[in-house]
Amino acid sequence: MQHARSGMEQCASGMEWDRYQSVRSRSLQLVEGLTAEDCQVQSMPDVSPAKWHLAHTSWFFETFVLAECGVGYAPFDAQFAYLFNSYYNSLGPMHPRPQRGLLTRPSLQRVMDYRQHVDAAMAQHWRAIVAAGLGERIELGLQHEQQHQELMLTDILHVLGCNPLAPAYDPASPPASMAQPSRWQRFGAGVRWVGHSGEGFAFDNERPRHRVWTEAFEVATRPVTNAEYRAFMDDGGYRNPLLWLSDGWAQRQAGDWQRPLYWDAPGEQAFGLYGLRPLDPHAPVSHLSYYEADAYARWAGARLPTEAEWETALTELGLPTPALPRARCPVLRAGLGAGEVWEWTCSAYAAYPGFRASAGAVGEYNGKFMCNQFVLRGGSCATPPGHARLTYRNFFPPAARWQFSGLRLARDA
Amino acid sequence: MQHARSGMEQCASGMEWDRYQSVRSRSLQLVEGLTAEDCQVQSMPDVSPAKWHLAHTSWFFETFVLAECGVGYAPFDAQFAYLFNSYYNSLGPMHPRPQRGLLTRPSLQRVMDYRQHVDAAMAQHWRAIVAAGLGERIELGLQHEQQHQELMLTDILHVLGCNPLAPAYDPASPPASMAQPSRWQRFGAGVRWVGHSGEGFAFDNERPRHRVWTEAFEVATRPVTNAEYRAFMDDGGYRNPLLWLSDGWAQRQAGDWQRPLYWDAPGEQAFGLYGLRPLDPHAPVSHLSYYEADAYARWAGARLPTEAEWETALTELGLPTPALPRARCPVLRAGLGAGEVWEWTCSAYAAYPGFRASAGAVGEYNGKFMCNQFVLRGGSCATPPGHARLTYRNFFPPAARWQFSGLRLARDA
Amino acid sequence: MQHARSGMEQCASGMEWDRYQSVRSRSLQLVEGLTAEDCQVQSMPDVSPAKWHLAHTSWFFETFVLAECGVGYAPFDAQFAYLFNSYYNSLGPMHPRPQRGLLTRPSLQRVMDYRQHVDAAMAQHWRAIVAAGLGERIELGLQHEQQHQELMLTDILHVLGCNPLAPAYDPASPPASMAQPSRWQRFGAGVRWVGHSGEGFAFDNERPRHRVWTEAFEVATRPVTNAEYRAFMDDGGYRNPLLWLSDGWAQRQAGDWQRPLYWDAPGEQAFGLYGLRPLDPHAPVSHLSYYEADAYARWAGARLPTEAEWETALTELGLPTPALPRARCPVLRAGLGAGEVWEWTCSAYAAYPGFRASAGAVGEYNGKFMCNQFVLRGGSCATPPGHARLTYRNFFPPAARWQFSGLRLARDA
Amino acid sequence: MQHARSGMEQCASGMEWDRYQSVRSRSLQLVEGLTAEDCQVQSMPDVSPAKWHLAHTSWFFETFVLAECGVGYAPFDAQFAYLFNSYYNSLGPMHPRPQRGLLTRPSLQRVMDYRQHVDAAMAQHWRAIVAAGLGERIELGLQHEQQHQELMLTDILHVLGCNPLAPAYDPASPPASMAQPSRWQRFGAGVRWVGHSGEGFAFDNERPRHRVWTEAFEVATRPVTNAEYRAFMDDGGYRNPLLWLSDGWAQRQAGDWQRPLYWDAPGEQAFGLYGLRPLDPHAPVSHLSYYEADAYARWAGARLPTEAEWETALTELGLPTPALPRARCPVLRAGLGAGEVWEWTCSAYAAYPGFRASAGAVGEYNGKFMCNQFVLRGGSCATPPGHARLTYRNFFPPAARWQFSGLRLARDA
Repeated sequence: MQHARSGMEQCASGMEWDRYQSVRSRSLQLVEGLTAEDCQVQSMPDVSPAKWHLAHTSWFFETFVLAECGVGYAPFDAQFAYLFNSYYNSLGPMHPRPQRGLLTRPSLQRVMDYRQHVDAAMAQHWRAIVAAGLGERIELGLQHEQQHQELMLTDILHVLGCNPLAPAYDPASPPASMAQPSRWQRFGAGVRWVGHSGEGFAFDNERPRHRVWTEAFEVATRPVTNAEYRAFMDDGGYRNPLLWLSDGWAQRQAGDWQRPLYWDAPGEQAFGLYGLRPLDPHAPVSHLSYYEADAYARWAGARLPTEAEWETALTELGLPTPALPRARCPVLRAGLGAGEVWEWTCSAYAAYPGFRASAGAVGEYNGKFMCNQFVLRGGSCATPPGHARLTYRNFFPPAARWQFSGLRLARDA
Repeated sequence: MQHARSGMEQCASGMEWDRYQSVRSRSLQLVEGLTAEDCQVQSMPDVSPAKWHLAHTSWFFETFVLAECGVGYAPFDAQFAYLFNSYYNSLGPMHPRPQRGLLTRPSLQRVMDYRQHVDAAMAQHWRAIVAAGLGERIELGLQHEQQHQELMLTDILHVLGCNPLAPAYDPASPPASMAQPSRWQRFGAGVRWVGHSGEGFAFDNERPRHRVWTEAFEVATRPVTNAEYRAFMDDGGYRNPLLWLSDGWAQRQAGDWQRPLYWDAPGEQAFGLYGLRPLDPHAPVSHLSYYEADAYARWAGARLPTEAEWETALTELGLPTPALPRARCPVLRAGLGAGEVWEWTCSAYAAYPGFRASAGAVGEYNGKFMCNQFVLRGGSCATPPGHARLTYRNFFPPAARWQFSGLRLARDA
Repeated sequence: MQHARSGMEQCASGMEWDRYQSVRSRSLQLVEGLTAEDCQVQSMPDVSPAKWHLAHTSWFFETFVLAECGVGYAPFDAQFAYLFNSYYNSLGPMHPRPQRGLLTRPSLQRVMDYRQHVDAAMAQHWRAIVAAGLGERIELGLQHEQQHQELMLTDILHVLGCNPLAPAYDPASPPASMAQPSRWQRFGAGVRWVGHSGEGFAFDNERPRHRVWTEAFEVATRPVTNAEYRAFMDDGGYRNPLLWLSDGWAQRQAGDWQRPLYWDAPGEQAFGLYGLRPLDPHAPVSHLSYYEADAYARWAGARLPTEAEWETALTELGLPTPALPRARCPVLRAGLGAGEVWEWTCSAYAAYPGFRASAGAVGEYNGKFMCNQFVLRGGSCATPPGHARLTYRNFFPPAARWQFSGLRLARDA
Repeated sequence: MQHARSGMEQCASGMEWDRYQSVRSRSLQLVEGLTAEDCQVQSMPDVSPAKWHLAHTSWFFETFVLAECGVGYAPFDAQFAYLFNSYYNSLGPMHPRPQRGLLTRPSLQRVMDYRQHVDAAMAQHWRAIVAAGLGERIELGLQHEQQHQELMLTDILHVLGCNPLAPAYDPASPPASMAQPSRWQRFGAGVRWVGHSGEGFAFDNERPRHRVWTEAFEVATRPVTNAEYRAFMDDGGYRNPLLWLSDGWAQRQAGDWQRPLYWDAPGEQAFGLYGLRPLDPHAPVSHLSYYEADAYARWAGARLPTEAEWETALTELGLPTPALPRARCPVLRAGLGAGEVWEWTCSAYAAYPGFRASAGAVGEYNGKFMCNQFVLRGGSCATPPGHARLTYRNFFPPAARWQFSGLRLARDA
């Protein structure tokens, strides 16, 4: 697939346009090795087809930028407003989420045309958009697209993981390894400031910056590894209900969970974007539900950190987030500053004190999901370079396992 | 998509090979207007992706002909035995049916290569196959492929019918019309012979030919039309439980059925292979469940025929089956002799007296489904030319609506 | 519980009243050993609480006899028409079947009062009822009550069978034993008369008597025993999909069936009305689904009889039905002439040629269930004495196991 | 039902025994107006039969007190350990929760005998129990029994509420009314102490007392009333997805919620322990899910309080909890100090910093449920007198509606 640009840059110029182009084209790079069939399938209701991601992120710019900038923009296809609205009730009815995989039309090719159309319009109207004060909306659109880039990877991994042929997305990418031992880092009790301070982009759910009282605590200097998690398994971790939350044990029984999502039965290999490979004992354990992370922590005589503890620890220590640079995946370029795995915290996803959802339809972006989910912090090997922050709040239901999710231990001091 | 043949015909020759080639190539013609995405999707567990149909029908020849003819044939891909076995427990485990739509790999292109490989091997070993006494197996494979050709059409219709864009499979094909009024044809009581007599191909479930006592009865000279069915709806047919079987009413409630599957809410248009078109009042009503057909018949003061009555009537009358030649669909060529819609009978699908399933794995073809299904007779606009017979027994569960299924009235004389 | 009658017999007199009283009071005898709690519970949607059975059978007389006989009968409680209508849509809405077990009110005591009220009114108006031509309705009501008497037993058995304490309904009742070996009895081909001839009571589904052509066949002289069924199990019958119908195998997998419903895991004991007792190897195997009966027959190189074959064989042979008199259960008194277990036939439950449902609401009694069920013939240890006939058609879905259902083998001659 | 005591008081004496006897006998008073049938039924998996509550609370004393006090106590019935263990995996397997309603045996009478047996043993061994240091366990058992007393009321209300006859549990009890207008009470930012201080009984989840930073906030002086909630409904509150959490809207759609659980369709009457009565506009709205409480608060331009805010406000204000004394229900005697309705907070149920679950099997009491639930504070008309505290943390999943649950508004200052 080819992403043609015909001198549109003459209208939009400067660093911002370069960033727009860079983020947008990365989405195309992510599907370069995939077939139209790979981009079509929805392997479970939580997963969206890659084609849908490609279209939805374009619809976001069309709806929240082009349609609002006052240039009389006409939508590429009037029916796309129904098909590619994800969950914005303010904007009218939408195609049901569990049926996204049924949309064999529009074809992937037509979605590619859609992207190009939107990009051309963005280039053409760039100055008008900025003049209309929608510069922050562009940034929101790019951050949104980066979130979907991570989802494209987790979703295609799930699609390929359902296939008995175990096809690799990207055979060259090895998992990361952490040779260093873990140690405890102590933090005293006190009031801390948590949340985004206002400089640079942040989602509404990271605001306002506010005070939190934290009792003294300790946090591990690196995430839990495959070898450490394997010891939990060998010790009967999946057979002992006393280690689990009640809901977690019910889920473990119902789903017959006996190991992390993509491990094989002997626990020797794991499926990943790189296909089926031997487990690296020193790589961080990944694809855990909250329930598994919580059970492991209890078994280890520890607990998960709160998000305030996590943010405090990573900020005060000046630890890289995570300690490991990720510059390995061909599609995930250098300098990202994000972690190998998202780290479950024991904090339910909730509004910060004084939280105000953004005005208008984008107010549905984050706030209405503050229920039945837990916050994850850090970032993963699938997070786009430069996307995550120390104040970034990812969130998923406690049974979710298809994300790159692991854990870091904490304990009372 | 292209179906290359490189002089393979030099080995296989004569009318039989021509027939093989003709049936096999028709499967490819059926997907000519479809994208790889269209061929990928499984819109409900009963539906199989077109790609799966294309592969499974090739696996059938590979497994039941090439592997048994003694030429040391090596399978195209050892993993296909698992992926494309439909339901033959004798042959080992198989990929679960509801997950067929998850197989984005092998790609459609690779499945096309598979077909070509199998066709080439069939050509190369044709004489050995015939010499090994597997001529009838070839015929079974072709009949099997024709059955899947009809399913490919009903399945792709369902896939496209789930799409709010209502894309047409084949815009040129108009529905058939039956101008003539229906009348009752009488048949006296007596013993009749039913089932296939032994000349020519027939499935094992059409045998043995046997006697059935039939009381005097009458059968309508044509199927029920859209206009007639519309009168049932206008008379509250979908609101009156007294017209329905108990299970049927439960299903009607659970599924909120208010009209045939592909009709729009006002009852003015219907979705079909031709897209969304105005309903032809004189076309046979189609896409009815058994429950709806049964309720209509009760409303009309009649009933559905037994399969013995149906076979008797169509045979003794010398009626064409159906009265309407179908030579309209580009993909369904002339001379078919099959009907517009399959006609539900009130006979549960069961073994004929003296039925013996075929020996070996092909014995799983028909017999193990003799439960919870009703027999349909005739043929439909989607049935391949020359495939159906007067003794042909199609069968589906009573709630099935995605087939081209309608009804013909009968009553006691 | 006590069933008081205050001289009501002075109005109703003669043999018919005695029969009415006898049938009605037997329902009360069946619950004598049960608590109000036992009579309350609905252990699965197919089961009805004993209290509901007691009320519904009274509602039947109230609705179809007392309300129609022209004496201005006022219902005992106006709300009972909603609560205790089973499935008669002609009579208006009804309490949903799966929620019968939620009706803790009316209490069992009030239902007993209801029964007494209805009985008193029947006695008082007996002559008027007969004069109004409703004598046959009384008989229908009694036959109906007898059917529910059997269901009361199967349902309470299921309730008690769900209890880990395995309480016995009636500890004194031993299972029957059949010492004699089974042999094949041959019947030639020909036209036979099947169905009820018109003398005496029969349900509408047993009519009209009609001709059926039957090919030559053989039938076993007794049902299959526990020991015989055990041999099927020991031979891997529950592990071999080739012995099973496709739907049956799916059900066996979903329900993890490994033995008849009430057998313990080692296959040494079975739960019954008598509690948990050692299996009698010579007793007929019971509590089989159609799927298990069919799989056993296939394993045995035989098949299930059609209902025409069954009726022909039992009639022509003059065999008792079954060969074993049942005069053992305290609640099931002598002279019954019915079998130990209902015998699955391979005939789907369908209308006989010329079938006409009864007029009015009682027309919903049988006809609307002619779908997705198989016919069972004979009778069981739970069938009230004198209730069953050679033409009697019992019917259940093929997955049902909580009835006293077994099988008798047949084969082509 | 009668609760005989035969001079057992001679062994146990003093205020503690009086308290034991008083709490235990209150459980019996609660079922005085119920039949054995009422006490049998489980109307949904969340509900337990009253009989089960009566047995389980006795099993608690048997297991956690009598069996541990070293007097060689023999259990009343060895099978009860399986039947009446609720969720203590440490103690071995247990009867599945959704099947509690199937246990028609043991009968209610036998459960009453069980209670009496346990009470007699408690009396007999009282001194040994206290000497063994199990005095706090007795208190835990009594607090546990009080929690089940509230559940008995909410559960029997649900059972009766499923009955189309709408039977009243206690016709004499009118709902409470709050005439006073609501106003906002302001609280400044700062560190507050939250949780139980250590004097008197508290559950482990109320500990340890710890500091929380709270930004300035305001809290309403009384809960939301029926009239206020009715205004939300009249303004389309149940039709506007923008007012709801995403999960809440999905639940509202799936359950077709249009009003509080026990309101009738016109919104004029509500079902309660008192039967069906006209709604009191000034009574607190009750039987709301978290989703409805949250949507109402958003509609009102406010939010739910955090549990720290709630505890701070009620403590600092010295407000009675609630403002309304409850001395009206015959079964709920005076002086209770608890509210009319439990008040949803926006705090997910989680461990307090430094939380340690109790040692041994009682450690499963609270901690393993800290997931997918929200905290409710205060108390309800069904809470036993003297049971609740300002630090008391009740918790239920956000979709739960069968508790006496309402809300109090809060907002940022």
